[in-house]
Amino acid sequence: MVINSMEQQFLTWLETRLAQQTQDETGIGDDCAVMHSLPKSSHVISTDIIVDQVHFDVSRHSPRMIGRKAIAVNLSDIAAMGASPDYAVVSLVIPMHWNLTQVQELYEGLLQLATEFNTDIIGGDFNRHDGPLTISVTIMGHQTSDGLKYRNTAIVGDDIYVTGPLGGSILGHHLLFTPRIEIGLELSLHNSVRAMTDITDGLVIDLHSLLNADQGALLYADSIPLRSEIKADTNALTRALYDGEDFELLFTASPQFTPADLTSNNHRDIHKLGVIRNEEGISLEDSNANITKLTLHGYEH
Amino acid sequence: MVINSMEQQFLTWLETRLAQQTQDETGIGDDCAVMHSLPKSSHVISTDIIVDQVHFDVSRHSPRMIGRKAIAVNLSDIAAMGASPDYAVVSLVIPMHWNLTQVQELYEGLLQLATEFNTDIIGGDFNRHDGPLTISVTIMGHQTSDGLKYRNTAIVGDDIYVTGPLGGSILGHHLLFTPRIEIGLELSLHNSVRAMTDITDGLVIDLHSLLNADQGALLYADSIPLRSEIKADTNALTRALYDGEDFELLFTASPQFTPADLTSNNHRDIHKLGVIRNEEGISLEDSNANITKLTLHGYEH
Repeated sequence: MVINSMEQQFLTWLETRLAQQTQDETGIGDDCAVMHSLPKSSHVISTDIIVDQVHFDVSRHSPRMIGRKAIAVNLSDIAAMGASPDYAVVSLVIPMHWNLTQVQELYEGLLQLATEFNTDIIGGDFNRHDGPLTISVTIMGHQTSDGLKYRNTAIVGDDIYVTGPLGGSILGHHLLFTPRIEIGLELSLHNSVRAMTDITDGLVIDLHSLLNADQGALLYADSIPLRSEIKADTNALTRALYDGEDFELLFTASPQFTPADLTSNNHRDIHKLGVIRNEEGISLEDSNANITKLTLHGYEH
Repeated sequence: MVINSMEQQFLTWLETRLAQQTQDETGIGDDCAVMHSLPKSSHVISTDIIVDQVHFDVSRHSPRMIGRKAIAVNLSDIAAMGASPDYAVVSLVIPMHWNLTQVQELYEGLLQLATEFNTDIIGGDFNRHDGPLTISVTIMGHQTSDGLKYRNTAIVGDDIYVTGPLGGSILGHHLLFTPRIEIGLELSLHNSVRAMTDITDGLVIDLHSLLNADQGALLYADSIPLRSEIKADTNALTRALYDGEDFELLFTASPQFTPADLTSNNHRDIHKLGVIRNEEGISLEDSNANITKLTLHGYEH
């Protein structure tokens, strides 16, 4: 570090920028961030790393949108547990030719979403290299209700639900989505909701991750909600099954559950699209009651 | 993700590999890792990201050594607070041409040091790309004694200490060092120890980070311990001042403190090399009592 290098300028800016959001924690500038008073409950932690040309494209996406996505994908993991986010740390590897303004804009995108979800950014790391923009975010959160929601707790006979339309996220949704924290917290209040995850790699492969040994699933083709941008596509259904990065919550619930159990308006977003059964594999039933077995693959990052 | 893709093979291996170390936590495989019982105290969190050609060189360093360094630099931050490590999450961005064995060896290097310091790896992220190997580690720890040690708590008149020889880390030490957790925890027991950090960017610049406004420091040239590999170099002292990545603890303590206050053998590693004073800047006093002002720069990652 050379005093007044870009790193130093950025850290000086960041210290001021973050000063308004931190409370009793020791913010950036020390070797670790300190959390003096964690809420008494189970804590969750999630980490994701996003890289240029894999998760975004610096030639097409603004620094602000990229920063937003870096924290959004983590918040989506917190949502998928039915937990509430508290703290984040952010590590950047910035291309050597970037200027301070670009780094600040990236951070502003990140901060905006963090603030929206009451997440304090309390630490991080900053590096530059001759390589792709890389952002790593780690978020801590905590359980607010009786139960966190896990992936391996589905039961045969559970209905399968999703919190919004699927497919074609690459057209913009993957950068603009609002993490499903609110609906995740509401679902966590219901014992009838059993297993939950968020759709990152695709409906089929993420549904597969909810299945225990000897479990399978049947999806109803007509019930799978399609994102409006792809509805006219001839392969819209395939896209909804496999595109990935929808960042909607995918959950199973006992037959007692109905979306109307949610008191908020969130229930309007919930679609029932299948059932857990004891026949292995994931199959699709079309409107003529024809059933075909789906191949298990998904969007590979 | 394609079932049986390298990602899937790696995650399957990892789940088995980590099963033996996790206790009551939900390990990898869910959207977040869950920590059911955090110790009651202040918690610390640190994150670092290391990248090929910046922090290591894949053409010269083995995957195992690189993995080891990825977690060692984080443990060093925990040590610098006088805290004890508990949990880690690990995100990998692996070059497309790497094979499963290379990834496993990298992880083994990481796990070996994690195990040595009782740190449970409870989550992570895995990606591949056509770019440099990138590893992000986030560690959580907790305070075990009365006080964590911060950077901004030095007082004029404090002596300045370091826990080992400096300079020439690039010759091997930066990959092989043992994080100073043990001595950090012991120093945290002493109220006479005031400010502390670890040397990453270089003695001068990291000492600068311990100084408050209106504070400066005087270093005694003859007291700066030199790494044996550089002792014969004509520029050995300059290297000890500026090389960086020594990962030794740098701390200030009131005049009441002496290394013999430490009951363990660790006191043998501790060298007094200067004093905090109220004259701004960092200066060097040679054996003839000549004092020169040092420039503030360091190793830029």
